[in-house]
Amino acid sequence: MSDTALQIQSLLREDRVLEVRLAEVPVPAPAADEVLVRVEAAPINPSDLGLLFGTADMTTARATGTPERPVIEADVPENAMRMMTGRIGQALPVGNEGAGTVVAAGDDPSAQALMGRTVGVFGGELYSQYRCVKAPQCLPLHEGTTAEQGASCFVNPMTALGMVETMVMEGHKALVHTAAASNLGQMLNRICIADGVPLVNIVRKPEQEALLRDLGAAHVVNSAADSFGDDLTAALRETGATLAFDAIGGGRLAGTILGCMEAVAVEQMDAYSRYGSDVFKQVYIYGALDYTPTTINRNFGFSWAVGGWLLPNFLQRAGGERMQRMQRRVADELTSTFASHYTARVSLAEALTLEALSVYGRQATGQKFLVTPQA
Amino acid sequence: MSDTALQIQSLLREDRVLEVRLAEVPVPAPAADEVLVRVEAAPINPSDLGLLFGTADMTTARATGTPERPVIEADVPENAMRMMTGRIGQALPVGNEGAGTVVAAGDDPSAQALMGRTVGVFGGELYSQYRCVKAPQCLPLHEGTTAEQGASCFVNPMTALGMVETMVMEGHKALVHTAAASNLGQMLNRICIADGVPLVNIVRKPEQEALLRDLGAAHVVNSAADSFGDDLTAALRETGATLAFDAIGGGRLAGTILGCMEAVAVEQMDAYSRYGSDVFKQVYIYGALDYTPTTINRNFGFSWAVGGWLLPNFLQRAGGERMQRMQRRVADELTSTFASHYTARVSLAEALTLEALSVYGRQATGQKFLVTPQA
Repeated sequence: MSDTALQIQSLLREDRVLEVRLAEVPVPAPAADEVLVRVEAAPINPSDLGLLFGTADMTTARATGTPERPVIEADVPENAMRMMTGRIGQALPVGNEGAGTVVAAGDDPSAQALMGRTVGVFGGELYSQYRCVKAPQCLPLHEGTTAEQGASCFVNPMTALGMVETMVMEGHKALVHTAAASNLGQMLNRICIADGVPLVNIVRKPEQEALLRDLGAAHVVNSAADSFGDDLTAALRETGATLAFDAIGGGRLAGTILGCMEAVAVEQMDAYSRYGSDVFKQVYIYGALDYTPTTINRNFGFSWAVGGWLLPNFLQRAGGERMQRMQRRVADELTSTFASHYTARVSLAEALTLEALSVYGRQATGQKFLVTPQA
Repeated sequence: MSDTALQIQSLLREDRVLEVRLAEVPVPAPAADEVLVRVEAAPINPSDLGLLFGTADMTTARATGTPERPVIEADVPENAMRMMTGRIGQALPVGNEGAGTVVAAGDDPSAQALMGRTVGVFGGELYSQYRCVKAPQCLPLHEGTTAEQGASCFVNPMTALGMVETMVMEGHKALVHTAAASNLGQMLNRICIADGVPLVNIVRKPEQEALLRDLGAAHVVNSAADSFGDDLTAALRETGATLAFDAIGGGRLAGTILGCMEAVAVEQMDAYSRYGSDVFKQVYIYGALDYTPTTINRNFGFSWAVGGWLLPNFLQRAGGERMQRMQRRVADELTSTFASHYTARVSLAEALTLEALSVYGRQATGQKFLVTPQA
């Protein structure tokens, strides 16, 4: 094994140019409680794109460097720099999750126990050929499970399960999900069918509607349809959903969901109240497919909240026992409930080509890339 | 005592006309656990205007009826009817709070004990000459306190105390308040000075800034100033406030507050995170001085929430013991901490003149009307 290896890094320069490059870094030696993982597969999730390219204007993207050491550069608009000043000059490794083989381990029994195992890993820096992590950060995969099958064992599975756990913890009875035809959305749909949780899927295209219905979804509404408000209200009436998870963030959708929830609540009131219903309605924004402002028409009384939802914060709140129960389920159902599908596989160098970027950078539903750092 | 009395009622007609009128209603006889209060003073709060005039277009207001039985009519725009369909055809009494003398009481000891006492009352229908309520809905005022002094003993005092209690219950250490020069804002300022709670007051005019500083406020920032963002950030840095109460609702202010809170939190981070800080930041919208949409630029990570805050919902959550402690303090400090000042006194009939409406309907800071139903 060479003592250096390749890693993708994202660097914001003072001159407002974002530089994403392939760097050569030392292969670390694991401490007593650590293992060294040879990373064989790591997905490109929407949450990775935010760190890879930040708020750079990707229409200005250009390829520099060499085929072996490619670099992508893009300009950052002046007004978009403010949100990233904290990272100027830092070469940041990228890649939230991945999977591979444990090729070295520290002396602790927990580390030694993982030697030779195929494990899923969460914790950043996975667009690397090698990654050194604490043993508890690894999810040992069942015998016969491949690194590719385990590459997406954390972000989407734990987010989808986290939505259902949040529903239980906060006393709601059903869920609404936007951008519901996504890989994550399909996973949530499978969990909800298995667990008997009523789910309202909001999509943007007729073909996504058909896809989810084919997958057994009972409630699918199209936000681009003229009848969207009525359709959504009807689905909320049937399910009793008062909790929504929104991947889009910008625009009027979060407010529209709250308004339709309130319409259902008001139908069930005995007397008029100018303060609206006292049914508590919650929208969590967990993504930013639309970076424009969230615009909320407050036509739904005073019993509501819109807030951010982030997996690490949720896990901290959920506690260790709940998290372990969730992880066991992921390992047990990795090739069924939590299966991910990839439309393309790219090496570290291939990920930094304009051709690949033009596809995975669009965040189109149905497109999902897998980085294979050993290729 | 006559067996009928006068009461202000607000009626939304099918033809999209809102009709606010003086009606003659029977004087009720108290049940065993009830008392009959002769209402002597009831304030016009912003929260009353919402029920009085709803979403009617008040530029179309006209006076009909007679001087003894005045009526104000106003048209409701078609798109504003949707929010009020629940009240069509119902003559709704108005007036959230007031004070007066108990002139009749049921047989229960708790009711009999109030006979002849001056009491504050919460529970609607206070723009009436008489109001029959359950004995526990009354706050007996201390000897020598007048009905006028007790008229506003509930909405503003309990809201201001409720903000501080919310801060404690939710683990924040300081407060931000918008429209801070209001009657309520001045009350909150007095409470925070007495209790040693750091408070950031946001106002919109230089003279309001001066007023609050004269009242001992340590942190006052003017949202109309060019330096608002910097001023607010500095005040948040000094106070550590991560909780704001916003009376305005519409526009960009709620998002701006969250953004400045995040800027302070990010200053204290060791390493850059593209997810922002994990410091939880909350804005509660408790009013609607601006009915336009709330527009939120989500440039403050994922650890945030914007939600509605309504006094009755808060009290339910706070529980009986906390509420009684709050009410005792209001009674004890009614002529100091919780004193309200009125700029005009109007009879029930005078309240329904275009002249009076043109002043109290504007909800201008510093203007507060008192209805005196016995005049």
